[in-house]
Amino acid sequence: MNNIGISVNELKIIDNFNGSIMHALKKSDIDFRGFGEIYFSQVKYKRIKAWKRHKKMTMNLFVPVGNVKFVFFNANKKEFQEYNIGTENYCRITVDPMIWFGFQGLNKGNNLVMNFANIEHNPDEVERINLLDLKYNW
Amino acid sequence: MNNIGISVNELKIIDNFNGSIMHALKKSDIDFRGFGEIYFSQVKYKRIKAWKRHKKMTMNLFVPVGNVKFVFFNANKKEFQEYNIGTENYCRITVDPMIWFGFQGLNKGNNLVMNFANIEHNPDEVERINLLDLKYNW
Repeated sequence: MNNIGISVNELKIIDNFNGSIMHALKKSDIDFRGFGEIYFSQVKYKRIKAWKRHKKMTMNLFVPVGNVKFVFFNANKKEFQEYNIGTENYCRITVDPMIWFGFQGLNKGNNLVMNFANIEHNPDEVERINLLDLKYNW
Repeated sequence: MNNIGISVNELKIIDNFNGSIMHALKKSDIDFRGFGEIYFSQVKYKRIKAWKRHKKMTMNLFVPVGNVKFVFFNANKKEFQEYNIGTENYCRITVDPMIWFGFQGLNKGNNLVMNFANIEHNPDEVERINLLDLKYNW
């Protein structure tokens, strides 16, 4: 699926008696756009981290624990897109630069997002607005 | 800390009301040895995944959820090294090729390992022996 610079790909989970293996990203995958930094972002139940956009960074987002709702907003098309991903729908979301995004924890336990970014964190390329600056019904 | 091809580095956790940010790896970090593939490996409470070694892969290991005991064995020095890492001791472990390793889940909930590997998965470069082939008291 690919809309307004967002690509969503289902990933494989290989069950194992001692604990599953969960695929994420290979250098040969179409969604690999280079490596700059990876980091984790926890998001507590019902809490919302929004809104932010990157001027240069392409994100590859994963939720290996819990479930998270992502909302993307294309300022040109004035269009929201939402995806729930996590252990119940294990996918990679690739997000081009210049797309506003926010996310919310859906599980009462831990919700863990990993961002595999093509550039290192740099505050100069990040824009932030307040939660209420975009009217979205979470 | 650096012994028999293993380097352990404490990582930063930035607390946040909505959920913490946990550093992992930047391209400019000394432990970055190239990117080939990332994947997650869950390990259930008390369960052990052992023993395996990579002929070519350098691993960068993270535990963003739970706590995991890693045991490394240098066949030349006949020496075990063990490290408990996870949310209670948030570190990156970088492991050179040719070191036997195994790991065990320490938390009753989820224990999640992420491996940031410098090459893609390739069964030809992986060696496996049975748990009891190396005498270690887990």
